[in-house]
Amino acid sequence: MADIAATVETYWATAQARDWRAFGATLADDVRYELPQTRERVLGRDGVVRFNAEYLGEWSLEVERVIADGEQAVSWVRFSEDEEETQAISFFTASADGRIQTITDFWPTPYEPPREREQMVERF
Amino acid sequence: MADIAATVETYWATAQARDWRAFGATLADDVRYELPQTRERVLGRDGVVRFNAEYLGEWSLEVERVIADGEQAVSWVRFSEDEEETQAISFFTASADGRIQTITDFWPTPYEPPREREQMVERF
Repeated sequence: MADIAATVETYWATAQARDWRAFGATLADDVRYELPQTRERVLGRDGVVRFNAEYLGEWSLEVERVIADGEQAVSWVRFSEDEEETQAISFFTASADGRIQTITDFWPTPYEPPREREQMVERF
Repeated sequence: MADIAATVETYWATAQARDWRAFGATLADDVRYELPQTRERVLGRDGVVRFNAEYLGEWSLEVERVIADGEQAVSWVRFSEDEEETQAISFFTASADGRIQTITDFWPTPYEPPREREQMVERF
């Protein structure tokens, strides 16, 4: 069985390279991709490849961290286009043959912190 | 050295129990807590304990996943109060003695999906 950490690194490297054939090869046939924030779901390799190929657009990505533990992994990735940056956190589980079985993506966006805690924090 | 996965489980169990002494014992003296979405930072155990004690309020939490790899870990936690649910994803690194050295928290919130991809997804 392939190492899920290495598979996740390949997933992002091939996305960055827009090598959608190699990207698809990291995915199980019946991969399930979910976005809990929008309650969207894509089922199956072809749909997930298409979603990413269209979604990624002109963004460039850089992997900040990958953490893996047996058949699970998570990545923290920075996307940038011009001056804009956004971050994605993706949870992965592996299929029996080491491909990616499930992907759960979170896209946290900036927000204004509550005033009532401004005495407890510094800003960076 | 303590297992960072076990330390993260204790961090959340003691937060749920509002046992702030035991919660503090999971943290390095010079722990660094950061929220990239608001660019807030809290330095040191006392400040991090206080921030969590005041922030957690009436919420109940449930750990969805913990993934650990050597000196790094991540958790995905669901917070609920009445009918409302929110999720947190927290990246941890360990100090040499196995306490928590850094915490990077993300709080992704729901958003409306772009219309242009509605042909590519189902909703759940």
